Amino acid sequence: MTNNLDLELIKEIALPSPSKVILLVIDGLGGLPNPETGKTELETANTPNLDQLAAKGICGLIDPVSRGITPGSAPGHLALFGYNPVTFNIGRGVLEAIGIDFDLEPGDVATRGNFCTVDETGLVTDRRAGRISTQKCTELCQLLDGVVIDGVKLFVCPVREHRFVVVFRGEEVAADVSDSDPQQIGVAPKIITALCPEADRMAGIANQFVAQAKKALAQHHPANMILLRGFSKRPQMPTMGEVYKLKPAAIAGYPMYRGLARLVGMEVLEAGTTIEDEFTALKKNYANYDFFFLHIKETDSAGEDGDFDRKVKIIEQIDKALAGLIDMEPDVVVVTGDHSTPALLKGHSWHPVPILLHSKWCRPDRVGEFSESACIFGGLGRFPAMQIMPLAMANALKLTKFGA
Amino acid sequence: MTNNLDLELIKEIALPSPSKVILLVIDGLGGLPNPETGKTELETANTPNLDQLAAKGICGLIDPVSRGITPGSAPGHLALFGYNPVTFNIGRGVLEAIGIDFDLEPGDVATRGNFCTVDETGLVTDRRAGRISTQKCTELCQLLDGVVIDGVKLFVCPVREHRFVVVFRGEEVAADVSDSDPQQIGVAPKIITALCPEADRMAGIANQFVAQAKKALAQHHPANMILLRGFSKRPQMPTMGEVYKLKPAAIAGYPMYRGLARLVGMEVLEAGTTIEDEFTALKKNYANYDFFFLHIKETDSAGEDGDFDRKVKIIEQIDKALAGLIDMEPDVVVVTGDHSTPALLKGHSWHPVPILLHSKWCRPDRVGEFSESACIFGGLGRFPAMQIMPLAMANALKLTKFGA
Repeated sequence: MTNNLDLELIKEIALPSPSKVILLVIDGLGGLPNPETGKTELETANTPNLDQLAAKGICGLIDPVSRGITPGSAPGHLALFGYNPVTFNIGRGVLEAIGIDFDLEPGDVATRGNFCTVDETGLVTDRRAGRISTQKCTELCQLLDGVVIDGVKLFVCPVREHRFVVVFRGEEVAADVSDSDPQQIGVAPKIITALCPEADRMAGIANQFVAQAKKALAQHHPANMILLRGFSKRPQMPTMGEVYKLKPAAIAGYPMYRGLARLVGMEVLEAGTTIEDEFTALKKNYANYDFFFLHIKETDSAGEDGDFDRKVKIIEQIDKALAGLIDMEPDVVVVTGDHSTPALLKGHSWHPVPILLHSKWCRPDRVGEFSESACIFGGLGRFPAMQIMPLAMANALKLTKFGA
Repeated sequence: MTNNLDLELIKEIALPSPSKVILLVIDGLGGLPNPETGKTELETANTPNLDQLAAKGICGLIDPVSRGITPGSAPGHLALFGYNPVTFNIGRGVLEAIGIDFDLEPGDVATRGNFCTVDETGLVTDRRAGRISTQKCTELCQLLDGVVIDGVKLFVCPVREHRFVVVFRGEEVAADVSDSDPQQIGVAPKIITALCPEADRMAGIANQFVAQAKKALAQHHPANMILLRGFSKRPQMPTMGEVYKLKPAAIAGYPMYRGLARLVGMEVLEAGTTIEDEFTALKKNYANYDFFFLHIKETDSAGEDGDFDRKVKIIEQIDKALAGLIDMEPDVVVVTGDHSTPALLKGHSWHPVPILLHSKWCRPDRVGEFSESACIFGGLGRFPAMQIMPLAMANALKLTKFGA
């Protein structure tokens, strides 16, 4: 079944109702066992609240894209929101742009930028320029912002630390150009090339911008060069309001996830700066929405840093914060991740992600703890992440019968 | 998701790397329990090495095509190689032809032939002519080879025992014709008919050939007639090198499997004549390839013969040979079958096939033995065979992240 069919079907049977659905996404939740203990991060963590929800609810394992595929954050989240992550392939540039509230116009091309360090021969020595401060990033972006090249206006906007966004606005700007980011150190930034003849002019404009930036940054070591990747335009997709008849809200600390939520029509709420802040934001806005996407980034960061123990601690912190949420008795609570990020692999992985769903109308299974190994035996079985939303909607009694 | 999308996606994210993947296919592996013991062939066999791999690895069950579908060898294997067996429907004739190294040209039509026995009234009494010797088959093929009918040249080539291949080469030869093989005894061979108007001429040519063969073989009882089936042309498909960026090798004793491996771009190695020979061939060539497809036919043959005990013994023989392979510490080992062939059914069946995957990066489950009933509880769950390759590639760290 193609994605359009899926969404069309749901659109046809979805009904607005006052019931409330909470989708708690613990980024990079799934892990791999510590060789010493045989237990994953989630299995090591002491999580009485998650275990209680698992015991009263129904569990399983999800594949974000399909078996063996390691998803980036965008496809991982699109699948969680019920959109086919292969059909709707969203570029990095677009995600970063909407994540900083940049008002992207339909024809705009956005690209993700890194300030980086190059040596005297032009080879990249640090792809993140020693993770300069956000303040420094903002100053440097001001140096580059607002230039016009061949009639195309460039917006250069800071994101966080070494990250920024460039938006190209003008006649016939194209997204079909290659990255300049070589994704490794010890080599020079790549020349941006057109991936189709129509993008020749755009490649030229982008390369000119890189050359100007190099000159402007020469005295700003370690941030003495830039790398661009993920040139892209905003895709056309139906909103969650249109498909699910929901009034959805997003609470996420990191810009990209807010951007992704906006892309599917969620309202983005003030998330604060800590995990506890995010749960507080949910409570504060509880009456005003019927769907909440609550995103916790810190587990993924710990996994990417290879810090098994930190990931364990963050999971325990989430578990504590969860108690207040359970007290509010939402109609449906779903807890899962957008992909696995095992500390042992120091990166995203293809391993399936544990999921628990709790509602008055779920059919509970015998799983008594929330963990990778217990979820193998869960009543939800193993299924594509794209099917979570229909399942959550059904459990919230927001879907009518299909067919006569 | 259609197959083309799958292969395109994998092609985009696959990276060459030195890690090694072994796909051990035990043909017809899955079985049904012996009514006396309640145990299948695999469960009856003493398999310490497979059990050890299962305990350290992750297990599950695969459906070669989909639930309830009994696959032939070709779709079973295409699925194992990651190709949609419904999209890429390869005719029996093509498989047999490439299995004997016949240099099939793009427009050629190939068909599988059986020498058979007919009685004086023309009814088939033995579809395999008492399994005549390969030498006899070769002599008889020489009688039929090289004729030209209506400008179309026919190549008649022996395969093994009663099996042969006919290749039709000429202007506008068509594959859309029915079989003459009635697939049962007690009836006459069928008249070959065109399945579309464009194939009328081809049906006529094929029927003329059958008539000529009947005359030529009249004095060669038990091989006094032929049966043709699986008229087909070589399909267009990307190679495993193109899709997976692998340098793949095949070790298979039976021609059809070598042919299938060639079709997806594997290099076919000298396999020897015994199961032990095949494992030796793998060791000998271990340094030169990064993917090995090792095919064991004997389990399927025993299943088809309804010989439960022989199938058990062959599985034990494979288990012994496996020890040497484990010692080589390949990065990923996958053990499975292309379909089930329960001795009780004396043929291929639709039952799912046990699979085990062992790698440093798999997330081990609680399965401690390799068997149909234990694999139900495996961490891989139950899934389409087509997803084995992405999974194996991921475990060999040969796939990069999909999407930003």
